[in-house]
Amino acid sequence: MNGRGRGDRSMGAVIGRTRWAIPEGFLPERVHGLGRELESHEAACLLNAGDADAHVTITVFFGQREPAGPYRVTVPARRTLHLRFDDLRDPEPLPRATDYASVIEADVPIVVQHTRLDSRRAESALLSTIAFAGTE
Amino acid sequence: MNGRGRGDRSMGAVIGRTRWAIPEGFLPERVHGLGRELESHEAACLLNAGDADAHVTITVFFGQREPAGPYRVTVPARRTLHLRFDDLRDPEPLPRATDYASVIEADVPIVVQHTRLDSRRAESALLSTIAFAGTE
Amino acid sequence: MNGRGRGDRSMGAVIGRTRWAIPEGFLPERVHGLGRELESHEAACLLNAGDADAHVTITVFFGQREPAGPYRVTVPARRTLHLRFDDLRDPEPLPRATDYASVIEADVPIVVQHTRLDSRRAESALLSTIAFAGTE
Amino acid sequence: MNGRGRGDRSMGAVIGRTRWAIPEGFLPERVHGLGRELESHEAACLLNAGDADAHVTITVFFGQREPAGPYRVTVPARRTLHLRFDDLRDPEPLPRATDYASVIEADVPIVVQHTRLDSRRAESALLSTIAFAGTE
Repeated sequence: MNGRGRGDRSMGAVIGRTRWAIPEGFLPERVHGLGRELESHEAACLLNAGDADAHVTITVFFGQREPAGPYRVTVPARRTLHLRFDDLRDPEPLPRATDYASVIEADVPIVVQHTRLDSRRAESALLSTIAFAGTE
Repeated sequence: MNGRGRGDRSMGAVIGRTRWAIPEGFLPERVHGLGRELESHEAACLLNAGDADAHVTITVFFGQREPAGPYRVTVPARRTLHLRFDDLRDPEPLPRATDYASVIEADVPIVVQHTRLDSRRAESALLSTIAFAGTE
Repeated sequence: MNGRGRGDRSMGAVIGRTRWAIPEGFLPERVHGLGRELESHEAACLLNAGDADAHVTITVFFGQREPAGPYRVTVPARRTLHLRFDDLRDPEPLPRATDYASVIEADVPIVVQHTRLDSRRAESALLSTIAFAGTE
Repeated sequence: MNGRGRGDRSMGAVIGRTRWAIPEGFLPERVHGLGRELESHEAACLLNAGDADAHVTITVFFGQREPAGPYRVTVPARRTLHLRFDDLRDPEPLPRATDYASVIEADVPIVVQHTRLDSRRAESALLSTIAFAGTE
């Protein structure tokens, strides 16, 4: 260990994969008068435990139309990013009240966990599961 | 990326597997007077991120009788399908108040997530987990 | 498909693994006056999608003592068994209010999902996750 | 089986992996006047099903700063440890109201499950998922 909490020798290759999928997704209708913090929302928790920044591309799939994206985010080296799907804006915001799925790709290994947070209490995640990791 | 949000070069092989299993399943007794939207229900969220339609076969296993099925659905190329188990009708509807399990097979790689939705709020999934992916 | 909902040709090898682990487990204190159905309980949902009966051995690990078991159950061919941990009796019932973990081994491939059911509504699982599948 | 609930012959190699990741983590603000048992908290359930003690190192990653750790715990042979993240103290307690992620490494194979417990009822886990297992 070298002050960053990891050492090359103990870790070997960085933990993670470069392609992930989350088949379940749903953004509820926006409720007027509620602030951003009070809405239920879905998140993809991204962990980059390596020493190189991860350039991440998200593609969102639907039932009735072609996919949206690519959405691009960067997860810096040795950082985690808890990304809310309703924060995705470019190239287009995600539609509400519509089932969707997502594929998350990165140029270095990352780990992805899918979580839906309850609007009422930040500590009350409604569900969480490690995403499906594709083979490299 | 080519406007469909994916490119062959960045994706390599399509993410997913062709055989999945969900050991947990339970459809509650139907409550008279509640509409379809107000019942708790289980879903298998299927993602087909590839460029060929996925022909999917679902077999349902029980504790006390031979399996039901095959149920057949198609997930078009680059689409997701959030399939409710209580929508399965052919060859037979699933019994209520009975434990079941399912095996989901496709002719191209897909990704499967098991979710049980709360009847009261569409955004409140009660549980969700990536299904078990068999080896090819 | 041959009336059992599967065919050897389409399935290839049976889906599953022979060794599984569930690190999380907790049986609450029994509440006097509540029936068996009204208690929260943990279950291991076992799916045997193959054509041979699965002879299953469960070992339960604790924080402060040697493991309990082996507990033995059979999951017949093409059947699912939703096993409640508080039904395990032989060689000893599981202690209440005690953290535990379990390893589940079978002589043929099975699939295992860990679920905790809410005492109040059978359809309301509190959590569920596919167990960890060991390599063969 | 030899009284420890397992036998070398039936088990083969010990089930587990030596590197695990949990991208999701959040400790709520401490509520004054509530005891330790009444707070929601996150846990990593660690199972060491083998015959050698597991020396475990936990590194915690954040969004805006370098990682914390290593935190060190030992899971004795044939034991499970349900570790609360808010019990981590050395080298530093985890900050509250801050997203984090964790990497868990051991010198022998273990199995890791991520669980968030409800403060109100010990038996009511809010979520649980097997952590991501890295390749060796």
